[in-house]
Amino acid sequence: MSLKPITEIILPAIETELQRQVARLDEARTRPFHEMLTYHMGWSGAGSGPEAQGKRLRPLLLLLTVAANGTDWLRAAPAAAAVELIHNFSLVHDDIQDNSGLRRGRETVWKKWGLAQGINAGDGLFVLANLAISDLEERFPADTILKVAKILHATCLDLTRGQFLDISYETRTDLPIEDYWPMVAGKTAALLSACTHIGAILGGADEAACEAYRDFGHYLGLAFQVRDDYLGIWGNSALTGKSNKSDLVAGKKSLPVLYGLEKAGAFAKRWQEGPIRGDEAASMSQKLTEEGAQLYTQEMSDQMTDLALKALRLANPQGDAGQALYDLAQRLLGRES
Amino acid sequence: MSLKPITEIILPAIETELQRQVARLDEARTRPFHEMLTYHMGWSGAGSGPEAQGKRLRPLLLLLTVAANGTDWLRAAPAAAAVELIHNFSLVHDDIQDNSGLRRGRETVWKKWGLAQGINAGDGLFVLANLAISDLEERFPADTILKVAKILHATCLDLTRGQFLDISYETRTDLPIEDYWPMVAGKTAALLSACTHIGAILGGADEAACEAYRDFGHYLGLAFQVRDDYLGIWGNSALTGKSNKSDLVAGKKSLPVLYGLEKAGAFAKRWQEGPIRGDEAASMSQKLTEEGAQLYTQEMSDQMTDLALKALRLANPQGDAGQALYDLAQRLLGRES
Repeated sequence: MSLKPITEIILPAIETELQRQVARLDEARTRPFHEMLTYHMGWSGAGSGPEAQGKRLRPLLLLLTVAANGTDWLRAAPAAAAVELIHNFSLVHDDIQDNSGLRRGRETVWKKWGLAQGINAGDGLFVLANLAISDLEERFPADTILKVAKILHATCLDLTRGQFLDISYETRTDLPIEDYWPMVAGKTAALLSACTHIGAILGGADEAACEAYRDFGHYLGLAFQVRDDYLGIWGNSALTGKSNKSDLVAGKKSLPVLYGLEKAGAFAKRWQEGPIRGDEAASMSQKLTEEGAQLYTQEMSDQMTDLALKALRLANPQGDAGQALYDLAQRLLGRES
Repeated sequence: MSLKPITEIILPAIETELQRQVARLDEARTRPFHEMLTYHMGWSGAGSGPEAQGKRLRPLLLLLTVAANGTDWLRAAPAAAAVELIHNFSLVHDDIQDNSGLRRGRETVWKKWGLAQGINAGDGLFVLANLAISDLEERFPADTILKVAKILHATCLDLTRGQFLDISYETRTDLPIEDYWPMVAGKTAALLSACTHIGAILGGADEAACEAYRDFGHYLGLAFQVRDDYLGIWGNSALTGKSNKSDLVAGKKSLPVLYGLEKAGAFAKRWQEGPIRGDEAASMSQKLTEEGAQLYTQEMSDQMTDLALKALRLANPQGDAGQALYDLAQRLLGRES
C-alpha cells in the first residue's frame, strides 16, 4: 500500500492515459492537429502546465468510484479518459459558441487556429472519446462495454440538449425558473452522473448501488452548479479569484437571477431594462437578497448537497477511495467539515 | 419476392429508420432543436422533400452489402442510419467551416439558426449516430457491435484528419500531389469503406470477404472523388447541373489542379498569381489538358474504378442485392455498361 493519498496516485495516471489516447493523432501529416489538442489539454504551448489542465474532476470521480467498489481502478483508465475528452470536446465548442477568446488564462483553440480548425478540434476530441471506450475491449466483457457506451452516448445527447437550451435562453428575458433545472441537468449534472454511474458498473457494483452512484453524480452536479451560481453573486471575490459581481454584469441567467425575475420586483424591473453596469452590481445583488433570492439559492444548494451525500451513503463506497469520494464531494460543495 | 428492385424497397426503410433515430430529440423542451435536424435531413421546412434529402448512398451501400451476404438487411437498419447521420454531422460542420450559405439549394442550418446552434446541431447528429449503433444491441452479438463501433469511430478519426488537411490546404499554394490521396481518403473514401465493411460484418461475411468489401468501398470512394474532380473541370455542365468551370474559379485543389501545379508550367504560373476569373476558365482548363492533367486524371479514375470493381468481384456479392451493388458502382463511376 502506498503512503500517498489515492487521488495523488490516480491523477498522474489520468494524465498519462489521456496523452496516450490523444497520441492517436501524433503522426507526421496531422502533427499540427495533434498540437491543437495537446495545447487545449494544457500539455503544450504558451502557459501549459497543471493550471492549464483543469482539475480532471470527471475522470477522478469515475476512477475513485471504481476503486471504492474494490476493483483495480487502472483497468478503467480508458473510460476515465473518455469522460474527460467528452468534457473537453464540449469546452472547445462552447468557447466558439460563447465567442470566448480566453480559457484558463490562455487563448482558446479557435482564437489561435481559426473557427474552422476550432470546430474540427472539438470534433476530434469527441471521436477520441469514442475510441477510448473501444479500448476497454481487452479489459471488460463486451456487454459491459456496450452498457458503458450507451450511458456515455445518452449523456452526450443530454449535453447537446442542455447546450441547445443554454443558447436559446440567451435571447430570452421571460425565462421561468422551472427551465433552470433541465438546462443545468444537461450542461453540468449529466456528465458527472455518467462518471459515477460508469465507475460503479466497471467497479462491479450491483444494480442498486449503480443507481445510488448515478444519483450521487447527478445531485453533486446540481449542487455544484447552484453553489457556483451563489458564489457568482455573493461569493468572496478574494476566494473565487474573480469579481463577485461578474455574473450580474455578464448577464448570466443563474438561479438567483431567475428567482428574481420570477418575483417581478425591483430587480426584475431593472434587469429587463438592459445590461447591468459594474457600479450597479452591488445594489442589484442587494435587491436580490431583499427579494429572497440569496436564501432560496442557499436552500437549494443545501438541498442538492444533502441529496448527493445521501446517495453516496446509500452507495456505501469502501476503503481509501470511498473516503476520498466523501472528501471530494465536501470540498466541491464547500463543506470543509 | 417483391417485384420492385431491391434499392426501391431499401430507400424508404432508410428514411423511416433515420426519422426514428432523430425522433430521440422530439420532445416539448427541445422541439426547435429537433426541427433543426429534420430541416437539415430534408424532412421539414422550406424546400423539404427528396431533392433536399440527398441520395442516401452510404446507408444504401451498407444495407445492400448486408443483403448481398444473404442476411436480412432490415436488421442492420440502425447501422445504416448511423453512417448517414455521421455523413450529415460532417456536412453541417463543413458548411460552417466553408462559410457556405446554401446546401442542395436550401439555406444551411447555421445560416438559418446561427453559428452556435449550427455547431450544436452537428454535434447532435454525431451523438445520434453513436446512439443508433447502441440500438443494434438486441439484434447482433455484443462483440459484433463493438467491432462495428470501432470501425465507425476509426472512420470518424479519418474524417477529422481529412478535414484538418482540407482546411490546412486552403491557404497553401505549394501542395504536392502526394498530399491529395490522404485528404481524399479521409474526406470521402473512409466513410464509404466503413459502409461496405460494416455491411459485410453484419451480413456475416468471412474475414477475407470483409476485407474485399472494405477495399471495394475505399476504391469506390477514391474513384468517385477523382471522377468528381474530372467533371468539375471537363464535365458537361448540362449533365452535372453546374458550370463546368466552377472548380477552377472556386480555386478548389482538385487532382487536375495539383497535377498542373506539380508540372510548374503555364497553368501553375497563372494559378499562383491569384484567383481565376470566369472568363479565364476555358483557357486554364485548356492549359491543364495540354500539360497532361486531363489524361492523368482520367487514368487515375479508371485505375481506381478497376480496383473497386476487382474488389467487388473478389467479395462475390450474391443475388439481387449483389447485382444492385455492381449497378450502383457503375452508375456512380459513370460506366453505364
